[in-house]
Amino acid sequence: MLPSIRCRRTNLIRRPCLSARLSTSSVLLANRAIVYSSFGNPSEVLSAITYPDLPPPPSKSLNVKYILSPINPADLNVIENKYHSKPSPVSSLSEGRHKFPEPHYVGGNEGLAEVTESVGLSEVNAATITVNPPTAYNMLHSFVEPKEGDLVMQNGANSAVGQAVIQIAARKGIRTLNFVRNRPDIDSLKNYLQSLGATHVFTYDDLKDKETVQNIKTTITKKGTSLMLNCVSGEPTKDMTRLLADSATLVSYGAMSKQPLILPTSLFIFRDLRCRGFWQSKWYEEHSIQQREELMKTLAELKLREPEYEILNLKGTASDEEVAQQVRSVIAKIQEGRYGRKVLLRFEPAQ
Amino acid sequence: MLPSIRCRRTNLIRRPCLSARLSTSSVLLANRAIVYSSFGNPSEVLSAITYPDLPPPPSKSLNVKYILSPINPADLNVIENKYHSKPSPVSSLSEGRHKFPEPHYVGGNEGLAEVTESVGLSEVNAATITVNPPTAYNMLHSFVEPKEGDLVMQNGANSAVGQAVIQIAARKGIRTLNFVRNRPDIDSLKNYLQSLGATHVFTYDDLKDKETVQNIKTTITKKGTSLMLNCVSGEPTKDMTRLLADSATLVSYGAMSKQPLILPTSLFIFRDLRCRGFWQSKWYEEHSIQQREELMKTLAELKLREPEYEILNLKGTASDEEVAQQVRSVIAKIQEGRYGRKVLLRFEPAQ
Repeated sequence: MLPSIRCRRTNLIRRPCLSARLSTSSVLLANRAIVYSSFGNPSEVLSAITYPDLPPPPSKSLNVKYILSPINPADLNVIENKYHSKPSPVSSLSEGRHKFPEPHYVGGNEGLAEVTESVGLSEVNAATITVNPPTAYNMLHSFVEPKEGDLVMQNGANSAVGQAVIQIAARKGIRTLNFVRNRPDIDSLKNYLQSLGATHVFTYDDLKDKETVQNIKTTITKKGTSLMLNCVSGEPTKDMTRLLADSATLVSYGAMSKQPLILPTSLFIFRDLRCRGFWQSKWYEEHSIQQREELMKTLAELKLREPEYEILNLKGTASDEEVAQQVRSVIAKIQEGRYGRKVLLRFEPAQ
Repeated sequence: MLPSIRCRRTNLIRRPCLSARLSTSSVLLANRAIVYSSFGNPSEVLSAITYPDLPPPPSKSLNVKYILSPINPADLNVIENKYHSKPSPVSSLSEGRHKFPEPHYVGGNEGLAEVTESVGLSEVNAATITVNPPTAYNMLHSFVEPKEGDLVMQNGANSAVGQAVIQIAARKGIRTLNFVRNRPDIDSLKNYLQSLGATHVFTYDDLKDKETVQNIKTTITKKGTSLMLNCVSGEPTKDMTRLLADSATLVSYGAMSKQPLILPTSLFIFRDLRCRGFWQSKWYEEHSIQQREELMKTLAELKLREPEYEILNLKGTASDEEVAQQVRSVIAKIQEGRYGRKVLLRFEPAQ
């Protein structure tokens, strides 16, 4: 399966993901995609569209059918036009009898497509293996490579990437110092992250308490950590930098707080802080097919626990309007934050 | 001369700089230092103190007499207790009949001391060669090493470091894109920096003008610059990052705006920005005497133009109170900003 997914990513970069396409020609209602024709709030601008069979794929490309299409935070940012990559318009979907406004775009960036061989992953694992786990894996290997016994610090530790970081680190004996937002059920979240292998879990509120910070310094970080992973930015991230070692590297891969990275210049001058960023899409661009397949193989063998998820079944018999409403409504909930589960769309056949 | 200065820096790290000490034993009033016993506003807490001869130096150390003692921005930050390095208290100055409160500290971090051999530098060049010019030189050589024809961008371009960057870059055929604050006599500053070799000079205000920014992108930076030097931080620095190339390095060595470094996280994730810092004192710690001497030799051979300066003569016949008042008063003017000249103290003998 994996080679075919990688293959698709390479050659069919414009082929959408929040969609289902069948290679048979008789089923009409199940050829469906979640699309938008103008940027804006995804819970308002997304529509569903059914379409006839795709034309035969261009040379070196494949038409694939998506089985599960996860909704990742970055997918929503793309629709809001707040992301670095701009989507490419798709025209092949509205040929013939369909009148969806041009240009239109199809949401999404990964998923489980029809497989040609199996490596024994669950559907959910397979549908979510190309974005979050490789981000976690590469951030642990591309900057400061922590060794067994070393400590890595991260915020947004309950994000899908954060959970993958915890698990990958734990398999290598790397300790993790994890930060999450405080919440009523914080103990159950701590227990869950610890069950994944998290060594320590604290909240950003803990960083406001001098005694707790001193305690973390004395008993956990000691001389400080040399690698910090950030998907939050803003105030909590600044507070965490007090736990860094000299010459540490802070790698950003997100900014959930929607705040910039705000750091005292003195950290760079006197403590030799190094700030970097990581973007998995760029990694794919810069690496060969062989390297990508090798990474997928490594990740599959790690057998990471599935993220907590919810599958949104989009019935083949439902109208495009009904499907669009279903998708918009779950996205509105995700946008409130704290949804806590990865949502995957399953486009069901019409029969 | 240089080896003896380097030697002093190594072995007499606690020996103060804003001071004059004579190796003869009969001149009393000229053994004077600018000291403080509590942290605070330098224009309020600094005193002058005369003192008897120093005791013989410890093994591998020298007692030296300062001829010119520059006042650098970082020196003021140390006195304000806003700097990373804390001064070490000095006790030898108040032995005997002197009653200055203990502990007390001596200000300053470089200067021209009594020489044992000459390399032909002017007094002012020699007094200001250990902090600003090596900072400029090392920032151009330790991160992204620009080649002939490449473009380096910097803010605070009229600072002593900025002027050294312009000159060192120009000697190597490296183009510089310089930013300074707007001011009534901006044209004369631009002319001055261009006379040092600056390729382009703009103000931070120019960054607010879309047309000017577009013009800079089209005609100067094109694909962007790969090295940016920052001693300002805050808003102007954020605006400048729009002119950076992908995978550029931003090196900070100061924060004159007294603002943190505020950068969109997306710059790190999508444009692979790398943020670093540079601190010359740390460079000295991490390099051998031979490497330091080599650097001083290289800098001396570059024959950089003296910074615009003003020498404050501290008369040997003046009382400690009068001298303290002189020093405090010039520092108050420096603190207003835009003083534009490096101030060097000259401790005159008593006769």
